[in-house]
Amino acid sequence: MAVYTRVSDAALGDFLASYDLGNALVFKGIAEGVENSNYFLETDTGKYILTLFEKRVAASDLPYFIALKQHLAANGFPCPEPIAGRDGDTLRQLEGRPAVIVSFLNGLSPIRPNPLQCRNLGIGLARLHAALADFPQTRPNNLGPAAWPGLWQGRETFADSLQAGLADAIDMDLQAIATADLAACALPVGTIHADLFPDNAFFIGDSFSGAIDFYFACTDALAYDLAICLNAWAFEADGAYNYSNGMNLLAGYQSERPLQTDELDMLPVLCRGAALRFFLTRLIDLADTPADALVKPHNPLDYAKRLAFHRRVHLAKDYGVAAS
Amino acid sequence: MAVYTRVSDAALGDFLASYDLGNALVFKGIAEGVENSNYFLETDTGKYILTLFEKRVAASDLPYFIALKQHLAANGFPCPEPIAGRDGDTLRQLEGRPAVIVSFLNGLSPIRPNPLQCRNLGIGLARLHAALADFPQTRPNNLGPAAWPGLWQGRETFADSLQAGLADAIDMDLQAIATADLAACALPVGTIHADLFPDNAFFIGDSFSGAIDFYFACTDALAYDLAICLNAWAFEADGAYNYSNGMNLLAGYQSERPLQTDELDMLPVLCRGAALRFFLTRLIDLADTPADALVKPHNPLDYAKRLAFHRRVHLAKDYGVAAS
Repeated sequence: MAVYTRVSDAALGDFLASYDLGNALVFKGIAEGVENSNYFLETDTGKYILTLFEKRVAASDLPYFIALKQHLAANGFPCPEPIAGRDGDTLRQLEGRPAVIVSFLNGLSPIRPNPLQCRNLGIGLARLHAALADFPQTRPNNLGPAAWPGLWQGRETFADSLQAGLADAIDMDLQAIATADLAACALPVGTIHADLFPDNAFFIGDSFSGAIDFYFACTDALAYDLAICLNAWAFEADGAYNYSNGMNLLAGYQSERPLQTDELDMLPVLCRGAALRFFLTRLIDLADTPADALVKPHNPLDYAKRLAFHRRVHLAKDYGVAAS
Repeated sequence: MAVYTRVSDAALGDFLASYDLGNALVFKGIAEGVENSNYFLETDTGKYILTLFEKRVAASDLPYFIALKQHLAANGFPCPEPIAGRDGDTLRQLEGRPAVIVSFLNGLSPIRPNPLQCRNLGIGLARLHAALADFPQTRPNNLGPAAWPGLWQGRETFADSLQAGLADAIDMDLQAIATADLAACALPVGTIHADLFPDNAFFIGDSFSGAIDFYFACTDALAYDLAICLNAWAFEADGAYNYSNGMNLLAGYQSERPLQTDELDMLPVLCRGAALRFFLTRLIDLADTPADALVKPHNPLDYAKRLAFHRRVHLAKDYGVAAS
């Protein structure tokens, strides 16, 4: 939530000379993005975001993310569209960092999404999947089911120090997910966002106006992306499932792309797996963050509460899937 | 350089209901301002900045700063203009903080100002003084000459730890300033910005497009404001005086408001005093900042170098004032 690399007005001027965007009128660092530096840039031709990639995103993945956003934009899905310079390139260097200019997306991120926003997010997610259906590139999900046992290993004691009995419960989750054998289910696979939290979605009023931050995008089960969204959009701060939000998110998604029977059958284990994924990465972030750090990591127990809910759910209708 | 108070989309919606600005289309925290939270806000009616005042600015001073910006804007000086709500008030509460919406100013802050920008800054400063000539309110300069001995007291050992012999040199500066007896000089007084550093000035290309951050504004000698600018705009990183920048800044100012003889005579001691003021507050910031703090304070030795230059100067022409 900060600007890590400072860009001088002179360096910006040199950088913009590679584009046909006109002169800079506004240039302000914005407190957005976890570990990239983002600037709001306005020129004679419009509003843009200039992103400098810091260490979190692997430079070798950048062409994939850029091609993905170009494909989405070309298919009419609202996302930051990489802008090419006069040489046709979108990715270049600025202040020693890989840097891109993307189109600016209007909209606000909801802190506490309402049911109508969830319905529109569900429609948006299905349209994202549809727009990427013919995207030719693939990228493995490095934080998928195969990675979870390795992320968990050695964290048991720390987990129990946060909440007694948590380690045993997580062991059971991993066992249940292994038994379900997601890989063997052959659910419909495609390109997924994999991190479509409310911070990464924009709305004008209740209308979905676009998605940002595709730096976890990868090739995986489409219904897993929906499960990530159910975790991120349909729980209260106290860990209670917001049935109205969940029902609307599912209904919105299914209005564009009805789920297959096997996807519905696997929804509880997909939701449990998605919650486990965020629990594990937040647990690791917390363990690795000094106690006096200015930036507080997300609390992994928020996702332990979601896991406790998913353990009790065995049918898609318990999330609010309408009876067919 | 961060957002300290987070504003939810719901709280923003409630806040905007007090204004005739339309609905929010964009709302992004910006990495600007030392200890206030600033958001870029775009609505149906245009671009704005929403500021939440954190602890640094005394709440009792806010009406003065708001009235000052209203006066400047009404007199055609480009600055953030406080926007009144439907009830006529500009200052209200948001997320438990005093908050204002101001108009948005296009422009970029120069990291390394060039001579033409300095000339235009000088013109801008003189116009700022002219626009405030009939501003009826006053505010004492809490960081003026009378405050300097108190700021210095007890810091001698710390200063010497940074640079051997510095404490004696600062004692001499204070003595020289006391001998000059600025208060008795009766230089022209008015409302001054008192912190017009390059961060707080905007340019489009080389054209001055406005000034921001009036939270040190006060009533003091107009030529002292010019002395602050000479220190902030006309020195290189290594402490060398940039004669070309200084000459242009002075020429720009004098093209709008020629300095009186007594102001020219006092210019060296005013520059020395201005450098001392920033040296002292930076020295205190450094002493009060833990060694492992994420935000590094400004280096007070940058201003010790400027002081060393000013000690050798005795005539305004040595700063680049054109011979009359």
